[in-house]
Amino acid sequence: MSTRRNRLTALALATVAASGLALAQQQPPQQPAPHKAVPPAEVNYQAGGSPLATEPMYQSTNPKAPAMTQAEFDKARQLYFERCAGCHGVLRKGATGKPLTPDITLGKGTDYLKVFIAYGSPAGMPNWLTSGEFDDKTVDMMARYIQHDPPQPPEFGMEQMKATWKVIVPPDQRPKKKMNAYNVQNIFSTTLRDTGEVALIDGDTKKIINIVKTGYAVHISRLSASGRYLYVIGRDAKINMIDLWMEKPDNVAELRVGLEARSVETSKAKGYEDKFAIAGAYWPPQYVIMKGDTLEPMRIVGTRGMTVDKQEYHPEPRVASIVGSHFKPEFIVNVKETGKTLLVNYADVNALKVTEIGTARFLHDGGLDSTKRYFMVAANQSNKIAAVDLKEGKLTQLIDVGKIPHPGRGANFKHPKFGPVWSTGHLGDETISLIGTDPVKNKASAWKVVQTLKGQGGGSLFLKTHPKSTNLYVDTPLNPDPKISQSIAVFDINNLDKGYKVLPIAEWAGIKDGGAMRALQPEYNKAGDEVWVSVWSAKDKQSAIVVIDDRTLKPKAIIKDPKLVTPTGHFNVYNTQHDVY
Amino acid sequence: MSTRRNRLTALALATVAASGLALAQQQPPQQPAPHKAVPPAEVNYQAGGSPLATEPMYQSTNPKAPAMTQAEFDKARQLYFERCAGCHGVLRKGATGKPLTPDITLGKGTDYLKVFIAYGSPAGMPNWLTSGEFDDKTVDMMARYIQHDPPQPPEFGMEQMKATWKVIVPPDQRPKKKMNAYNVQNIFSTTLRDTGEVALIDGDTKKIINIVKTGYAVHISRLSASGRYLYVIGRDAKINMIDLWMEKPDNVAELRVGLEARSVETSKAKGYEDKFAIAGAYWPPQYVIMKGDTLEPMRIVGTRGMTVDKQEYHPEPRVASIVGSHFKPEFIVNVKETGKTLLVNYADVNALKVTEIGTARFLHDGGLDSTKRYFMVAANQSNKIAAVDLKEGKLTQLIDVGKIPHPGRGANFKHPKFGPVWSTGHLGDETISLIGTDPVKNKASAWKVVQTLKGQGGGSLFLKTHPKSTNLYVDTPLNPDPKISQSIAVFDINNLDKGYKVLPIAEWAGIKDGGAMRALQPEYNKAGDEVWVSVWSAKDKQSAIVVIDDRTLKPKAIIKDPKLVTPTGHFNVYNTQHDVY
Repeated sequence: MSTRRNRLTALALATVAASGLALAQQQPPQQPAPHKAVPPAEVNYQAGGSPLATEPMYQSTNPKAPAMTQAEFDKARQLYFERCAGCHGVLRKGATGKPLTPDITLGKGTDYLKVFIAYGSPAGMPNWLTSGEFDDKTVDMMARYIQHDPPQPPEFGMEQMKATWKVIVPPDQRPKKKMNAYNVQNIFSTTLRDTGEVALIDGDTKKIINIVKTGYAVHISRLSASGRYLYVIGRDAKINMIDLWMEKPDNVAELRVGLEARSVETSKAKGYEDKFAIAGAYWPPQYVIMKGDTLEPMRIVGTRGMTVDKQEYHPEPRVASIVGSHFKPEFIVNVKETGKTLLVNYADVNALKVTEIGTARFLHDGGLDSTKRYFMVAANQSNKIAAVDLKEGKLTQLIDVGKIPHPGRGANFKHPKFGPVWSTGHLGDETISLIGTDPVKNKASAWKVVQTLKGQGGGSLFLKTHPKSTNLYVDTPLNPDPKISQSIAVFDINNLDKGYKVLPIAEWAGIKDGGAMRALQPEYNKAGDEVWVSVWSAKDKQSAIVVIDDRTLKPKAIIKDPKLVTPTGHFNVYNTQHDVY
Repeated sequence: MSTRRNRLTALALATVAASGLALAQQQPPQQPAPHKAVPPAEVNYQAGGSPLATEPMYQSTNPKAPAMTQAEFDKARQLYFERCAGCHGVLRKGATGKPLTPDITLGKGTDYLKVFIAYGSPAGMPNWLTSGEFDDKTVDMMARYIQHDPPQPPEFGMEQMKATWKVIVPPDQRPKKKMNAYNVQNIFSTTLRDTGEVALIDGDTKKIINIVKTGYAVHISRLSASGRYLYVIGRDAKINMIDLWMEKPDNVAELRVGLEARSVETSKAKGYEDKFAIAGAYWPPQYVIMKGDTLEPMRIVGTRGMTVDKQEYHPEPRVASIVGSHFKPEFIVNVKETGKTLLVNYADVNALKVTEIGTARFLHDGGLDSTKRYFMVAANQSNKIAAVDLKEGKLTQLIDVGKIPHPGRGANFKHPKFGPVWSTGHLGDETISLIGTDPVKNKASAWKVVQTLKGQGGGSLFLKTHPKSTNLYVDTPLNPDPKISQSIAVFDINNLDKGYKVLPIAEWAGIKDGGAMRALQPEYNKAGDEVWVSVWSAKDKQSAIVVIDDRTLKPKAIIKDPKLVTPTGHFNVYNTQHDVY
């Protein structure tokens, strides 16, 4: 591919990724699947979605920077948070994107900055002018804006958290036993991205149990160790806690932990079941440990500190994925910008013991290996997977993989030749990396990429299998080719060299005028014999969930409902509770 | 006493404490000893002493703040760091003093702020105009300055540290055995505050062995576990490492760890002797672990985070005292503004394990109890001592004591009635608090103030005893009454109710025209039969060290030397090495 084509496809991808709005308005370009780096998919704002764009902030003006009116400044600030902060950071210290602090930008000058904003760069900077997202005036405004000091978003400490805390149904007024007839372990919690809700769907009957009000664009759902409580967190840092024992499962508590967040998890160690929850925030950069039954915030811990590589201070180390250890009373907290994996021991919440393991920048998502002893986390700018030994509390290995690994929690299966592997897809290329995870019986394969599969294309977010299945599902929702973004590749684990079968998910959904649909996040039911995939369309279009029969690889059910607006991620209660993936 | 008199004495004290320069120029007012709160003694700058006052910094201007010329701004910035930052913080978030960020100061306005700066407050704000320190123009300038954004001092990460690192004599070129005839264990390391040096003095002969170039105003001296290496740290965050085995003990390595610092310590746990050093910085707020033989910086850890009480973010949690545990491979790191005591386990420097124990704000200095199991640390704004159990890794008790406890490392002795106690004097009142430290054989007395002694007055910095002595020495160098500041009180441990005997240290020194001399930091020799006290005068005056015979309480030797300029703290090798105090 020519450099220019490479660049264009990368930019198109980045633009789509950077704007939820773009989804409905913009057709992906009709060109071959790119194998190029794109910014992580999380840069996925919708106007007004993040409190960072609207919260009042203290701001001083740099006299050396070009003049702006207050109205321009306010508009630029909002645009920056919606479109730029995901990659460049709220404080503009750089992450996936370059640093944009005035000490740098003032030296470049308005004209230089305008070119970059307008036309983008091959490294992944979107072409905001030529893509039609910004007009000339907006480009000029943004070029001036980034020469001013970054506004300092407010902190969000205990006082602010407590002010948002609501116990809707106190523990003593909750059911003493399950009050409904649902097979709770097979319920799916599906994010309805643009309505600020989750749909609880009965996995047996495929019927919607309840649509529960939550934060905006719920990023993940997690279960308490007992499987009774469901915790979801919105990008606006609002956590909702849902009691699955209620006659109609619904919210029993809520809390905001900051202005922007991605992760929530629960205590899974023996003796601590359902006792604690934890949430990680993007802003302020911190995590908070809560009481498991009420979300009462107990302990807030900041993550600002030194990067793993250069050991230089970073003011905005965002908390990415968090997983609860089954081995020890520990949360595994991954800090993106510093490249540190923290093992937060919660045995004594009044004297938290934190083991800081340097891994690689910029940490994103990950999951446990099949034995649950090792945590595998993607450092998506380093193109590495870090394997952390949760028993010994140290880094086992950094493993080079493809471009911008994005595993979700990854997929564990027994490779016919190399034994147990954990696998990840990539945003930036079409490969799937299989990593050996058994240092005892398959020592030669351990902590190495034992095989690289070739999938449909770049833009993969999630892949999934199940201990009872021999299929590996790989989505590609951020691929610019609609054929690829609307379908799922399935590999036969016992015949990996055979290549993949393509399941035309969006086609099966039978949606007319669905716009720029995307098929994403394959998720097994409890039994491991069916796979749910979201068909995510625009807010004003019909979406669906396609349920695949795992044996026949044929559609088994299509879930459609006017209430099913923009479904994205979904989580099966049992599999999430037990880290089955 | 009248409120006005109370206020004046507090202000006088604060003014003296806040300015090293004031020492020679200003006679303490002739009034009774105050029992009032004063800011901690560390606010003790001399022009040019802190790189914070001179380092270039990025600064933007708040358009709402009153205009200033660049020259005014630069001068105000320097004055702020020298006179104000100690109490109000570099970022003006408040500590011992109130917060002074523009969101607060702009609302007050220049006139209001001028009154405060000029006349001070009963809460301890010095009267900068009426004390003669500032003129009208300076008061006006400072009132305008603090309405502008605080300049952001630069970070000091690994790159900056490495640039300052010097190995003067590499380990393989150092002596294989002791090359001198000194009784190394009885050497004293004495800070020569205003020359940026330490004097190494032979405790046996009282002769100066060497004057070693160091950072400015060395705050403490610490020994490696073996007693071979002496580490000193200046307020300018420069560490010097001195090899006591050399024919003439001198520097073998140096490193700067930030722009301002107070603490250095070494690894004392079994198996880690002489292996690591650690230093804590005031700015940037961080600590660094170094190789014990070269000072090579290995791991930098930031301390920015949440306060213990309100759990709100603090941008400048300064590292106060650090002590090495003898029990475990742990450093006890006390973070002032957040009120957190960190147990930093250095067994695996690549995966540091930190236990964060909330104690109280604002942590300052402290030491071990006689068993070395408990660490006792002063929270000088809370008027509390926190007892931390180093074996269990948790807070044992917060104990209310007098006003602004300042123990140094405290003094351990066996109380005739209550058993083992640890004691502290106070800056803000004349009391000495004795705290029971034996929860096994003296359970009823443990973690309580079992007796409160009445000393000469407020302004005490250090008190000391020794296992072989029955005397307890209490200094009062910051008391405004020269009779008190120039003498030391001695209690007989077996007759505590009898009151104290006053030793007229400065008088014994026989210095003519010594100016505003202060007697400070009683320190035992190794044998525990003599006590060294500094007589600290101005830079251009004669100073001395008075050596007291511990049995007779009479002067035994007076050490005077033209090279002994402004001696302040001193540390005996053996006692410091073994935490004997």
